[in-house]
Amino acid sequence: MNSIRVRVADVDDIPAIVDMLADDPLGATRENPGDLSAYRAAFEAIDTDHNQYLVVAVDDSGVVGTAQLSIVPGLSRNGMSRAMIEGVRVRRDRRSDGVGAILMEWAADMARTRGCRLIQLTSDKTRTDAHRFYSRLGYVDSHIGYKRPL
Amino acid sequence: MNSIRVRVADVDDIPAIVDMLADDPLGATRENPGDLSAYRAAFEAIDTDHNQYLVVAVDDSGVVGTAQLSIVPGLSRNGMSRAMIEGVRVRRDRRSDGVGAILMEWAADMARTRGCRLIQLTSDKTRTDAHRFYSRLGYVDSHIGYKRPL
Repeated sequence: MNSIRVRVADVDDIPAIVDMLADDPLGATRENPGDLSAYRAAFEAIDTDHNQYLVVAVDDSGVVGTAQLSIVPGLSRNGMSRAMIEGVRVRRDRRSDGVGAILMEWAADMARTRGCRLIQLTSDKTRTDAHRFYSRLGYVDSHIGYKRPL
Repeated sequence: MNSIRVRVADVDDIPAIVDMLADDPLGATRENPGDLSAYRAAFEAIDTDHNQYLVVAVDDSGVVGTAQLSIVPGLSRNGMSRAMIEGVRVRRDRRSDGVGAILMEWAADMARTRGCRLIQLTSDKTRTDAHRFYSRLGYVDSHIGYKRPL
């Protein structure tokens, strides 16, 4: 296996990231890879926010994974910052190959560097494979994740 | 009942906010109302971040509730921003009095104003009263909330 590196995404990574978001049982109905304009605007908002890290995992074949880390300052727990992960995706031909774990460890390391003492995520109840993955990495399913469309 | 207003918190609200965070079954072991220095630093980080809103609900008796709204830009769901709520607390003598619902509606309205199409939160599995509250407000428990200490 050639070596995998994690780096902050640049604008040229958007098509590969969107392809991975769309190649997913839930994402298939939510994403629009044919028109990247909304994704480019969102990328700009992320890229200019010092508390957002959109990253890609790359190897010699190109982009093989992505994730987004958010740093959230807060008063609770004695003024603790927390980190949140969203949008962890691995390219189909590289799944079950350690890419996801490398992205998750990058996120945990950056969260520590930024002073966070907790990292959290929510996962759709239907993603049972993902649940085993997060448990193996030390995540505890202590919470219920609620969502409301606006 | 005198009228309740929601406004962005200022630095003088920190003691009242921390008292509410500490007056809670989980918060009692996590908070440190005797030393506000870490809270003041966290307040500064929130107050200077245009994607963070620490708010208080106030009436003629002073601060009666608090919540934090975070705006999180993202690529998934066609470049959708999402909103996240943390730290919803109501002063003990004003619980079950509509304060929490007013805070949650303020948060949803601001999230819409900021272009979010989804608002989300996680709630500890032990907070069964809170779960009924969120369900009544239209939140769906579609996700598992994972946390990992760092």
